[in-house]
Amino acid sequence: MISRQHVEAAWRLVRPHVRRTPCIKLTPGALGVGVPLALKLEALQVSGSFKGRGAFHKLLASTVPAAGIVAASGGNHGAAAAYAARALGHRAEIFVPTIAAPAKVARLRSYGAIVHQVGAVYAEARAASEAHAAETGALVVPAYEDETVFAGAGSVALEFLEQASFDTLLVAVGGGGLIAGCAAAIGREKKIVAVETEGTPTLHAALAAGHPVDVAISGLAADALGASRIGTPNFEVARTLVQRSLLVSDDHVRSAQRALWDELRIVAEPAGATGLAALRSGAYRPAPGERVATLICGANTDPASVA
Amino acid sequence: MISRQHVEAAWRLVRPHVRRTPCIKLTPGALGVGVPLALKLEALQVSGSFKGRGAFHKLLASTVPAAGIVAASGGNHGAAAAYAARALGHRAEIFVPTIAAPAKVARLRSYGAIVHQVGAVYAEARAASEAHAAETGALVVPAYEDETVFAGAGSVALEFLEQASFDTLLVAVGGGGLIAGCAAAIGREKKIVAVETEGTPTLHAALAAGHPVDVAISGLAADALGASRIGTPNFEVARTLVQRSLLVSDDHVRSAQRALWDELRIVAEPAGATGLAALRSGAYRPAPGERVATLICGANTDPASVA
Repeated sequence: MISRQHVEAAWRLVRPHVRRTPCIKLTPGALGVGVPLALKLEALQVSGSFKGRGAFHKLLASTVPAAGIVAASGGNHGAAAAYAARALGHRAEIFVPTIAAPAKVARLRSYGAIVHQVGAVYAEARAASEAHAAETGALVVPAYEDETVFAGAGSVALEFLEQASFDTLLVAVGGGGLIAGCAAAIGREKKIVAVETEGTPTLHAALAAGHPVDVAISGLAADALGASRIGTPNFEVARTLVQRSLLVSDDHVRSAQRALWDELRIVAEPAGATGLAALRSGAYRPAPGERVATLICGANTDPASVA
Repeated sequence: MISRQHVEAAWRLVRPHVRRTPCIKLTPGALGVGVPLALKLEALQVSGSFKGRGAFHKLLASTVPAAGIVAASGGNHGAAAAYAARALGHRAEIFVPTIAAPAKVARLRSYGAIVHQVGAVYAEARAASEAHAAETGALVVPAYEDETVFAGAGSVALEFLEQASFDTLLVAVGGGGLIAGCAAAIGREKKIVAVETEGTPTLHAALAAGHPVDVAISGLAADALGASRIGTPNFEVARTLVQRSLLVSDDHVRSAQRALWDELRIVAEPAGATGLAALRSGAYRPAPGERVATLICGANTDPASVA
C-alpha cells in the first residue's frame, strides 16, 4: 500500500508539469455551510481536472515505448492522458465509445491524440484499448486502478495542505483514484470523508461487502463518477484511512453546483460538487468550528447546466 | 487625487468583509500568451465582482442614514451595493430600467434589496435613484465616479501584488473605477495598461480629447463596460499613471473568453477577458520574459456563452 512518501515522490516528478491550482477560504455562512470552508479549484489544472496529475506521474515514472500510450476514456482521464503525452512528446491513442460526444472527441484531438471510436459502451472501448496495447506494446494509462496513477493524484492533497488549514477533507469517489491518493498523502493527520452519489456508490458498497463489488451506476454523476467497481489497491487505501463514507442525492449535488455558481461563479461538474453537497445537505455535520475542505476536482460539464 | 495610502486605508476597512480572491500563475504558452501570466480570479469576490470592494468601502467610510443606501444598476454594481448593505445592516434601494433581466432583478432581491424598475434606459433609472436620494436622504453609492468607491476597488491590486510578481498589469476600463483604484494602488511601481473594447472606449476617447467626453457605446462589452463617459476623478488618476491605452475587438474578447473556459474552466464576462484579449491579439506585445498580469474582474454572464 502506498504512503505519503510515495505521494511526495510523485509530486516532485509531476510538479514541473502541472499547475499549482488556487484555493479560496470562505467564512462560515458562505455556500450554506456554517463552518470555515476551504475549496481547492482543481478544475483549473492542466487538462481540466485532477486527472492531469496522475497521467503525468504515470508517464514520468514509466518507460514509454515508441508505440506511446493508450487510454480508454472520453472524459477527464482521456483528456489528461492525451495532454500529458503531448507535453512529454509521446504518441497517444485514446479509445472512446461511438456515443462519445463530438465535443469530447474534438478536445482529445486538440491535444494531439489519435482517437478511436469503438464499441457501443465504455467496456468495449476499454477492451479495444487493451487489445491495441497488447498488439503494439503501448503503455496503458489506467484511469484509476493503478498505484502510480493515484500517487500522482494525491499530490493535490499535499498542495492543499500547504495552502489551507483544515480538520476534515471531503473527497468525491468514483473509481477511487482521488480518494486513494488523498488518503495516502494525508494518512491519519486529518479526517477524510468519502462522498458518493446514491447512484454511484462504489466505495460504500465495497465497505459493506468487505471487498470491491460491482454496482449499478445511475444518475447525475454517472459520467464522471461512473466506475462500476472501485479499484482494488484504491480500496485497500480507502478502507484503511477513510473515516466515513457518505452518500448524497442527485438533487443535493445539483443544488451544490448551483450554489457554487450563484455565490462564487465557479463551474463544477457533479463530481466536483459532491463534497459540498454533503455539507449543505447535512449528510456530513461538522462539529462547531470544525474546519472543512473539499476539492472542486473537475468542471467537465456544460456550463449552462449550473446557471 | 488619491494615492496608495488611501487605497491601503480602504483595504484595512474592507478586508474583514470581502474575500481574498485566488490567483493562478501560468507558464508561457498557456492561453496563447508567450510570457508568464498571472490571473486574479476576482469574479469569486462577494457579490460576483470587484465592485464588492468599492461598495463596502463606501458604506464603511460613510455615515449611512436610516434611509439606507441607493444605487442605480442592474449589474455588478447594483449587486455589490445590495450585498454590502445587507451585510452591514442597511436598507438598500436599487433602481434598474424596466428592461432589466428578471434574473438580475431576482439576484438583487435575493440580497434583500428593494428593487425599483423605472424608465426605459439606464439614465432614467439613475435619475429616479437620485430623486429618491434627494427626497429621503439615502446615501448614493455611485458606480465608479467617486474616490471612496474606487479607493476600495484598488484593494484588489494591493492583494494581487502580495500574491504574484509581475511587471505589467492589464486592466479593463468602463467608467474607470477599477483602473483608477488599481493605478492609485500601484502608482509607478509597475506598468499599467488600460484595455477597452472598440465599442466602449471611454478612456481612449478622453485621452485623445484631454478630458472626459461622451462616447457612443456598443458591442459585446456594452453591458459591463458600458459607461458612456469616464469619471472625472478616475480620469485624473488614469491620465497620470496609466502608461498605455489599448483597444481590442469584440471578436478578440470572445476568443479570450473561450480560451479561459477551454484551458482553465474559468467563466469570465467580456470585461473580465479584455486584458487577456489584448495579450492574445497582439494589441499588447510583451517584451521577452516580461511578466504580465490581469484581473478576471467579473463573471456576470450566461455561462453558456463561453463554451
